[in-house]
Amino acid sequence: MHVVRLTLAYDGTDFRGWAHQRDPAVRTVEGVLADLLSRVVDERVRLSVAGRTDAGVHARGQVASFRTGNPMTPERIRDAVNGALGPEIVALDAREAPDGFDARFSATARVYRYMVDTAGVSDPFTARFEWHRPGSLSVSRMRAAARPLVGEHDFASFCRHPGAGRPTLRNLQRLTVVREGSRVVFGFRANAFLHQMVRSLVATLVAVGEGRLEPADVERMLDARDRSATRGRLAPARGLTLERVVYGRRSIR
Amino acid sequence: MHVVRLTLAYDGTDFRGWAHQRDPAVRTVEGVLADLLSRVVDERVRLSVAGRTDAGVHARGQVASFRTGNPMTPERIRDAVNGALGPEIVALDAREAPDGFDARFSATARVYRYMVDTAGVSDPFTARFEWHRPGSLSVSRMRAAARPLVGEHDFASFCRHPGAGRPTLRNLQRLTVVREGSRVVFGFRANAFLHQMVRSLVATLVAVGEGRLEPADVERMLDARDRSATRGRLAPARGLTLERVVYGRRSIR
Repeated sequence: MHVVRLTLAYDGTDFRGWAHQRDPAVRTVEGVLADLLSRVVDERVRLSVAGRTDAGVHARGQVASFRTGNPMTPERIRDAVNGALGPEIVALDAREAPDGFDARFSATARVYRYMVDTAGVSDPFTARFEWHRPGSLSVSRMRAAARPLVGEHDFASFCRHPGAGRPTLRNLQRLTVVREGSRVVFGFRANAFLHQMVRSLVATLVAVGEGRLEPADVERMLDARDRSATRGRLAPARGLTLERVVYGRRSIR
Repeated sequence: MHVVRLTLAYDGTDFRGWAHQRDPAVRTVEGVLADLLSRVVDERVRLSVAGRTDAGVHARGQVASFRTGNPMTPERIRDAVNGALGPEIVALDAREAPDGFDARFSATARVYRYMVDTAGVSDPFTARFEWHRPGSLSVSRMRAAARPLVGEHDFASFCRHPGAGRPTLRNLQRLTVVREGSRVVFGFRANAFLHQMVRSLVATLVAVGEGRLEPADVERMLDARDRSATRGRLAPARGLTLERVVYGRRSIR
């Protein structure tokens, strides 16, 4: 047995998220990929993944791994994925990983990006990958609101709660807000993310950028540790992309 | 009666080109747009267009015009298009045009861009708008081949012939080849283009870039004035975008 590590990019628009679902009519990235890999290596493949992206969320540097007894080279596996599933899902890289490597449990950090387009008219060339929300946003107000969110906190206000007894403490190592022309790019890095955490944070920050909330309100929401404090605000999935996954290197860059 | 001029952008992937087709099951940009505009201004709209893009070809600055007796402001027409058809088709601008303006006949030049991605693996984020053709291309060889094409020539070798007696003389004012990372961007400007002209030129230049043709072969093909000289080579539609249309200003920029 050996471990294969895949770096994946995908356009999540036409998938109901990463996670395999029992109903075979529901198209998921994991379902499509595991089916193909199982045919390629001629045995049932079970994937581990760093980021279980939601329906409509994209990836530029997702990492998945699986164990197989098939001696096929990683290059051939990569080419088989790209030939069959590209350009919707592509393997940017495939390599042998050390025994014991697991895409999910070995990951030390995840980096997400959220793109908002504030132009009056949406852009057909990028619309699949951004939230079109016309009208100005104050980057300085959003940065002020973001500051107290960075660090280790209980993010219960900014997620779909994972269930009683399951921790909602996460270390948000970095949160950046950058204007690029008519677009605002949010960057997030954390040891791990809770379900809907990035989209909840983006929706709240955008409300600050619009002036509907004050930066100080966001810190109060964090302290409340209850999703009702944020009224369940959620930015659309299409603007969210898993950019990369960090293994081993714990330093922030 | 007054004339409305629309500047349009669209993702042509899911359209069978610009031109309306009789079969209502065939989805075209003109068909979808004229249907909507006819409902908006409450009278039958007939569109004139600067570039009759083929199936799968995109536009960033297409121009269309129509005459209407409805006094509705161009801004309301623009908003109606964007609300109903965006982000697949958007109106970037709508304005009153001088009487006698016609998007097709008033245009003095068209600018197209063709994008080739030479990376080993296609990019899910841009794949709809480029030809993924892995492997290196020599930009200097393609530039050498492009030089004799610029100017007024009979481009019969590089088009689907418009029919006996119809002229194939066009003035190719500019042809640029630029490398951008793993991509090669071809820029074309002409007074007007023949059917499949850009895609035929790109396929031929790419054959030169790969070393399958010599730069001097291209000039011989041009002189042959016969499509069999280029063996009907055609680059895929997805890489082609109508960038903008020039009115009045005959100078090249």
